[in-house]
Amino acid sequence: MTIDPVTLTADLIRCPSVTPEEGGALVLLEKMLSEAGFTCTRVDRGGIANLFARWGDKGHARSFGFNGHTDVVPVGDLAAWTVDPFGAEEKDGQLWGRGATDMKSGVAAFVAAAVDFVQTTPPDGAVVITITGDEEGDALDGTVALLDWMKDNDERMSVCLVGEPTCPNEMGEMMKIGRRGSLNAFFTVRGVQGHAAYPHRAKNPCHALARLMDRLASTPLDEGSDHFDASTLAVVTMDVGNPATNVIPAEAKATLNIRFNDLHSGAALTQWLEDQAALVDADFGTETEVKVKISGESFITPPGDLSDLVAKSVQAETGVTPELSTSGGTSDARFMQHHCPVVEFGLVGKTMHQVDERVDIDQIRALKAIYSRILTDYFA
Amino acid sequence: MTIDPVTLTADLIRCPSVTPEEGGALVLLEKMLSEAGFTCTRVDRGGIANLFARWGDKGHARSFGFNGHTDVVPVGDLAAWTVDPFGAEEKDGQLWGRGATDMKSGVAAFVAAAVDFVQTTPPDGAVVITITGDEEGDALDGTVALLDWMKDNDERMSVCLVGEPTCPNEMGEMMKIGRRGSLNAFFTVRGVQGHAAYPHRAKNPCHALARLMDRLASTPLDEGSDHFDASTLAVVTMDVGNPATNVIPAEAKATLNIRFNDLHSGAALTQWLEDQAALVDADFGTETEVKVKISGESFITPPGDLSDLVAKSVQAETGVTPELSTSGGTSDARFMQHHCPVVEFGLVGKTMHQVDERVDIDQIRALKAIYSRILTDYFA
Ligand SMILES: [Zn+2]
Ligand SMILES: [Zn+2]
Repeated sequence: MTIDPVTLTADLIRCPSVTPEEGGALVLLEKMLSEAGFTCTRVDRGGIANLFARWGDKGHARSFGFNGHTDVVPVGDLAAWTVDPFGAEEKDGQLWGRGATDMKSGVAAFVAAAVDFVQTTPPDGAVVITITGDEEGDALDGTVALLDWMKDNDERMSVCLVGEPTCPNEMGEMMKIGRRGSLNAFFTVRGVQGHAAYPHRAKNPCHALARLMDRLASTPLDEGSDHFDASTLAVVTMDVGNPATNVIPAEAKATLNIRFNDLHSGAALTQWLEDQAALVDADFGTETEVKVKISGESFITPPGDLSDLVAKSVQAETGVTPELSTSGGTSDARFMQHHCPVVEFGLVGKTMHQVDERVDIDQIRALKAIYSRILTDYFA
Repeated sequence: MTIDPVTLTADLIRCPSVTPEEGGALVLLEKMLSEAGFTCTRVDRGGIANLFARWGDKGHARSFGFNGHTDVVPVGDLAAWTVDPFGAEEKDGQLWGRGATDMKSGVAAFVAAAVDFVQTTPPDGAVVITITGDEEGDALDGTVALLDWMKDNDERMSVCLVGEPTCPNEMGEMMKIGRRGSLNAFFTVRGVQGHAAYPHRAKNPCHALARLMDRLASTPLDEGSDHFDASTLAVVTMDVGNPATNVIPAEAKATLNIRFNDLHSGAALTQWLEDQAALVDADFGTETEVKVKISGESFITPPGDLSDLVAKSVQAETGVTPELSTSGGTSDARFMQHHCPVVEFGLVGKTMHQVDERVDIDQIRALKAIYSRILTDYFA
């Protein structure tokens, strides 16, 4: 059997798999991979469908892994779409629909490459594929469930390639070898209410909050590290909601987001935020509560064998040398990195999460060719 | 005729004169003052009722003036009152109801004192009474309308006593010889929206606002002047309303209130606020709009004949020497000061604007006695 990655992308787009709906996508892939000789297991948890598939021996020392997701974000404003978001229409050399770039094309490309490879040149090793239906949602029962199940069943990957779209504009220009960490901190400053004419009888939480946010925002966290840009901090909201100009309010709130590199940990940043809040509280007599939610720690797979393998294949197929980047938001690579070395490479993600999401058909074919070459080179 | 100030206070409380309603209060007072020989004129403007009353010759060089208001603030949470707010119930030596301290008792006391005085010891001079129905509201058509009318009709006061409650806790302890000015400033900081992961592509208005508010709040305006406390600045709200932790918002707002003494003017403070905003804008690339609303400039009637007259009467009747203060919020003294020397003296205002507003009955009688002595001494 030969799988056309463009046809498969189109078939997957037609499955309305908005998180947490399976939508038929994993059922389709399981059938296809089983027919190609993969041992497939549905690893469902918490109402989420996930698929584990392995060709070759369990626990082989050379097990090449792919990771991806078939769930998609909601279509948003349906009226703003010029096509049926689940129609997989082809026009102008592009395939249109929700998930076209993020990342049904990526899944189709690595499934097509893997099936091709094991059928034409069966390797001495294993090819392992994990596909989740919960990447765009809370991600609690997606790749994490797959990894839990793999641990319990002695399944493993030696290395992992995540097929998320990684190129900002041009095919091949960027791969990701890590990601910055991210945390949100929620501040509630409690003071003492009072009349604006008698501020000495009150403790103004607005003044404490302004001081604290200014200090935090104007303190450089670092200057970047070997593979990371400088960490950043952005105050995203400050809210009091006091309509009375003659009243000093009792409480003021703010939220900030930190994107941090490998010079920091979520715990150390939390401690820093709490220390800074305590210093300001000491000045103003206020009491500040800090609640921190760590979305993910930073991680890195340092440049080496895996990144070389991917970069060389990209270069050979596209003529472009990919930048080794750690920029951008989170992906399931943050879970895979606990299991084995992981890098991400995929096509151009310009329209991801937008209306009229679409992908260049040529890029799907190019991506399949890159993934095929990676498999060939890995097992050579 | 003799007017009992307690009975008159109760009668006025029974008039539901919530701004802008006349509620029968001025009709009652006009009738009473006319019967006592005062020339009365209703000076209504913009839907507001006001009363001008004069005993004696128009334009006499010795014209003692009283100013007060019969309008009251709304009752607020009616269920929280233990009495009918317009019932004027007497219990525990107190008279209960909306306006009991602010300031139907004050109006009753000076009307009773004035009527008593002109009937028992007709002076060589005039007693002028101005009572407005728009002190608690916008105050655009209240005392200002009375002053406009007085100017047009060559009516005048030589000095003016405003009967607002001025004592924080104990009868007689404080009179007011001026007030600080007050202004509100409304800030809108406009930046450039962006993703929290790429703050260098955005211009964060939260950061600019925090810096600006911290700078303004931590800059002492002065250390006080001869008759005034230090000016104060209170940020009363900061609002962004951004629910998305991964988005840097486009706009951030704040409001602050300044209470300022005679070392400042509203115009100079406005300039200072605009200059500070421009400095922060230069740092952050933001654009800040500053809208200033000046509620009133500071004013002072320096200690002298008028304050001595009032202080001596208070001392004689209560045994307490009143402090000459310039503290507190605004009153119609800010308008009267443009016409003639003005001071304020009244009873204890502890429950003003609150539920279960009430006044010690003894204080109403004491206040009438003080006003009577002031009239006697003034014309002596
Ligand atoms: Zn994705
Ligand atoms: Zn009042």
